[in-house]
Amino acid sequence: MKKNSKEAIVHAAVSLFNTKGYSGTSIRDIAAKAKVNPANISYYFQNKHGLLEYCFTSFFEQYMDKIEEGYACIDRGATFCLKKITANLLNFLCDNIQLTTFIFREMSIDSQLVREIMSTYYTKEKFYLQRVLEKGIEQREFHRHSITYMIVQLKGLWIMPFLNTNYLREVLYVFPNERFFAEKYAHDVYKWIDEVLCRKEALIS
Amino acid sequence: MKKNSKEAIVHAAVSLFNTKGYSGTSIRDIAAKAKVNPANISYYFQNKHGLLEYCFTSFFEQYMDKIEEGYACIDRGATFCLKKITANLLNFLCDNIQLTTFIFREMSIDSQLVREIMSTYYTKEKFYLQRVLEKGIEQREFHRHSITYMIVQLKGLWIMPFLNTNYLREVLYVFPNERFFAEKYAHDVYKWIDEVLCRKEALIS
Repeated sequence: MKKNSKEAIVHAAVSLFNTKGYSGTSIRDIAAKAKVNPANISYYFQNKHGLLEYCFTSFFEQYMDKIEEGYACIDRGATFCLKKITANLLNFLCDNIQLTTFIFREMSIDSQLVREIMSTYYTKEKFYLQRVLEKGIEQREFHRHSITYMIVQLKGLWIMPFLNTNYLREVLYVFPNERFFAEKYAHDVYKWIDEVLCRKEALIS
Repeated sequence: MKKNSKEAIVHAAVSLFNTKGYSGTSIRDIAAKAKVNPANISYYFQNKHGLLEYCFTSFFEQYMDKIEEGYACIDRGATFCLKKITANLLNFLCDNIQLTTFIFREMSIDSQLVREIMSTYYTKEKFYLQRVLEKGIEQREFHRHSITYMIVQLKGLWIMPFLNTNYLREVLYVFPNERFFAEKYAHDVYKWIDEVLCRKEALIS
C-alpha cells in the first residue's frame, strides 16, 4: 500500500512536470492527481525539489544500468557491444517516455542539479562510450574518427525521438512510445554504427 | 535608437528565458536587463507572451530561409542539396546559440504555440526534406530507406549539439558556439549523408 502511494506520487509528478513544467506544478496539484494527502509527499520527498531529485536519480540509475549491461559484452567486439547498449537504452527510454522527455528537456538547462547529474552520470557514460570506441579503433573494427564527435552524433540519435515526441506524433505520424518504434529505430542506429563507424574491410573480412 | 531598444529587449529576454525559464522570468527582469522602461516592452510586444511569440517567429522565419536557400540547389543533386541545407542551418544555429537552445527546449513541450509552429514551419520543413530525399532515391543517389526515419536521424544530428550545450561544454569540452565547431560538425553530418543515405555505387560512378 505504501509503495503504491509513493509510485503514484512519482507518476503524477512526472506527468505534471512534463505538461505544465516544474515551476508550473505545485505539491497540491501532484497530491490531487496522485489522490494522496500532500503530507505524504513531504513524508517521502521532503519538498518539490526532493521529488525532482528523486526523478532524476531514479532515471539515471536505470539509464546507467542499461549502459553497463551492454558494456559487459565488450569481449564480443565493439560493434556488438555498442549495438547492445543502443538496444537496451532505446527500449528503456521508450518504456519510460514521459519521464525521458522531461529529463532530457531539463538536462538542457544550466542548474545545480543538472551539473551534479552530468558530473556523476554523464561522465561515467562518457567513460564507457570512450572505452568502446577506443577498443573498436584498436581492433580495427572502427574508423579513426574523433571520439568526441562520434559521441555527439550517437547521443543525438539516441535522444532525438524521445525528446521530440510531439514532433514525431504530429508531424511525422510516428509513435515513439510503442515498442515497435524502438525496435525499428534501433536498426537505424545500427546502420549508423555499421556505415559511419565501421571500416568496410572489417565488415567484409 | 528605437530599433536598438527593441533588439536589446529581445536579447535580454532570450538570455533570461534560457537561464531562468519562461515562467521564471518577469517583464520587470527583462526591462532591467535590457535597461529599458517596462512600458517599452508593452509597446513593442504587448506582453510576455507576445515577446515569446516574436522569438519563435523570428527564429523559425530565419530557420526556414536557410532551408529554402539550400533547397534552391536541388538541381545540383540531392546529396549536394542536403549538404548545403545542413551547412546553412548549422551555421545559423551556432550563430544564435542561446535562442536555439531555448527554442529547441520549448519545442519539446506540448503547448498551443508549439502546435502552431509545428503546423506552420515543421510541416513546411518536412515537405522540403521529403522532396530532397525522394529525389535522391529516384535519381538512385540514395538508398531506399524509410524517409520518415531518415528525417528523425537527420534532425537528431542537427539539433543535438545546440540543445545540449552544457553537456558539450562540461563533459566533452567542445564549444558549440564557435564557428570552428559548426564547420567540423557539418563534415560529420556529411559523413552520415555519404555513408548512410548514399548508395555506394552512386559514389563510385
